[in-house]
Amino acid sequence: MLKLKRPTLLVDKSKTLRNISAMAEKAGSNRVTLSPHFKTHQSREIAKWYSNAGVQSATVSSVTMARYFADDGWEDITIVFPVNPREVDDIDALASICSLTILINSVDAVNMISEKITNSIKVLIEIDTGYHRTGMWFEDKPGIGKIIDAVNSCRLLTFEGFYCHSGNTYKARSLEEIATIHTHTVDGLNFLKKYFGESGIKLSLGDTPACCTQTYFKGIDTIRPGNFVFYDLMQAQLGSCKEADIAIAMACPVVFKNSERLEIVVYGGGVHFSKENLMINGKCTFGKMIELMPDGWSESLPGCYLSSVSQEHGILRVTPEVFEKRHIGDMIGILPVHSCLTADLMGEYTTLDGHTLDHMSGAKFR
Amino acid sequence: MLKLKRPTLLVDKSKTLRNISAMAEKAGSNRVTLSPHFKTHQSREIAKWYSNAGVQSATVSSVTMARYFADDGWEDITIVFPVNPREVDDIDALASICSLTILINSVDAVNMISEKITNSIKVLIEIDTGYHRTGMWFEDKPGIGKIIDAVNSCRLLTFEGFYCHSGNTYKARSLEEIATIHTHTVDGLNFLKKYFGESGIKLSLGDTPACCTQTYFKGIDTIRPGNFVFYDLMQAQLGSCKEADIAIAMACPVVFKNSERLEIVVYGGGVHFSKENLMINGKCTFGKMIELMPDGWSESLPGCYLSSVSQEHGILRVTPEVFEKRHIGDMIGILPVHSCLTADLMGEYTTLDGHTLDHMSGAKFR
Repeated sequence: MLKLKRPTLLVDKSKTLRNISAMAEKAGSNRVTLSPHFKTHQSREIAKWYSNAGVQSATVSSVTMARYFADDGWEDITIVFPVNPREVDDIDALASICSLTILINSVDAVNMISEKITNSIKVLIEIDTGYHRTGMWFEDKPGIGKIIDAVNSCRLLTFEGFYCHSGNTYKARSLEEIATIHTHTVDGLNFLKKYFGESGIKLSLGDTPACCTQTYFKGIDTIRPGNFVFYDLMQAQLGSCKEADIAIAMACPVVFKNSERLEIVVYGGGVHFSKENLMINGKCTFGKMIELMPDGWSESLPGCYLSSVSQEHGILRVTPEVFEKRHIGDMIGILPVHSCLTADLMGEYTTLDGHTLDHMSGAKFR
Repeated sequence: MLKLKRPTLLVDKSKTLRNISAMAEKAGSNRVTLSPHFKTHQSREIAKWYSNAGVQSATVSSVTMARYFADDGWEDITIVFPVNPREVDDIDALASICSLTILINSVDAVNMISEKITNSIKVLIEIDTGYHRTGMWFEDKPGIGKIIDAVNSCRLLTFEGFYCHSGNTYKARSLEEIATIHTHTVDGLNFLKKYFGESGIKLSLGDTPACCTQTYFKGIDTIRPGNFVFYDLMQAQLGSCKEADIAIAMACPVVFKNSERLEIVVYGGGVHFSKENLMINGKCTFGKMIELMPDGWSESLPGCYLSSVSQEHGILRVTPEVFEKRHIGDMIGILPVHSCLTADLMGEYTTLDGHTLDHMSGAKFR
């Protein structure tokens, strides 16, 4: 067993590799390219696990993240966040060292970008088919057409196609609901492709729930899911994965016990897990307790869950049996609700054999 | 106006200094020592603003944080988080370079610590008067007595007194309710001091809502509030401060607008603000919009608030007038719900005149 002192984010490499190869195989059998979203892991070393599996294209959510991976040799990078014109110099510099695709959702943004760039950049327009976060409404053909025209009028910008993140699948309550949202998105993108002339227009989408559970990818060129690399309790609740597929877990030292409330308090709070939570069995849950073992961890222990977090404290509600077996100074394992945010806060990973893997946000030795 | 590219955490130094001197004056007039909790700012440079105001003692929430400030010359540090025996070597090393006080809430922890230390360490026992997070229940005199005996039997540990964080004031709905919780805590601590023999036993407490709004500090030696240095929307809602006292604000670039939903999307999401939220006027609020100005910022704009965040996206609901005036590429100011978590995520501060201040967690150039 590893000797750990503080809250530590463990990664099970074999589970992670399994998750990666399952998605790569699914992409292959559905004849779509996998350009995984790296915002979940934000790690150069984990990115290499992808390239070992044949992945050559990366999707990211910020210019900074694109730079992080470009500097490590990734040559085909797509930033699926609406372009921030204030970063145009950084974007232009990036485009000089890799094949860069950015997201542009307005004529204003095209104009601000096109004035200042000196390198060729590919452009995706983000399409909203019902998530209502960002992107052009898929029925707004005149609005979309104006952006395409603006892009086409700039010598260094190339209109590449349409992208959609159907984040509304995260609110689905059944596989049928995920299927309905996904089918609507695929059909919406194909409708636009046909309307704007078919040839050369590429379609991509990327939400883990749909990419994991659906097989309808008609006309789609690229999928960009990210969370599946680790999964988490949210994805397990959605049906994207089984709990056994979750590839990261927090290890947290026990610092206090209260026998009357059957509570175990760990060093591990909002600055480690984030404050993301889920209703599971009617209870507000910030994580589920597992048993740490030298080669990984057990299934979650029934009736034992992280019921609240403050800055550094995490409070676990446990059964009387588990309460008796755990002592101050023990390490307790906890599956996170949202792996992207937990990894971002922790800033590094520890493998089961004790190696440290990088994360872009950097370790804080919490 | 500062030239900013990405989400940036602004700090108004004059407001911060005002908040610090107001609390220092309050402590002075109530004859209690102010040992401010540094977990809110986690900044060596902001810590210096405290020492300039005469503060000599620091309160922190982790061993790592204690090390951060000890290495910068702080000589009197109290860690108000239940001791984690796995960090005993780090604790012992710290005690060799500063006057260190730790929190011990069980005989088990005393035994694990006392076996391994080689330097003198002072001990506070944490008391629970109703928050029910950690600490010994204030009526459990036998249990508390056993810990004191265990501490006294270790040559290098010195029992110093009792500490209570009445975090339940954060759930209060009125100043009367804060007063009731606080009075109960002060009386509970005095009851224990009297029971265990008065002389030499020191009492301390520290929650911003009570320290800001109350004046009853009978028998209390030290107060340890932290959040008041910046305040935030949560404290304004509790009545600890006015909105005008909030000393930090996020500046976020506009990246998308949707006229039908009157939404402005900014680069600034859960990895910048955290996912902490509040119900304000019946609406789930992740922040309030302000007008950024060269010398600070305006009051919050009525009807304009951060209504949701995902990893990098923040969605503002705004009025038609504000919607028209804001364009892609503009910087928008937002007051945070919880300044401790926002600062921890951002990892650095920018003053209004463009200087960068450190934060222990380190800048991620998000």
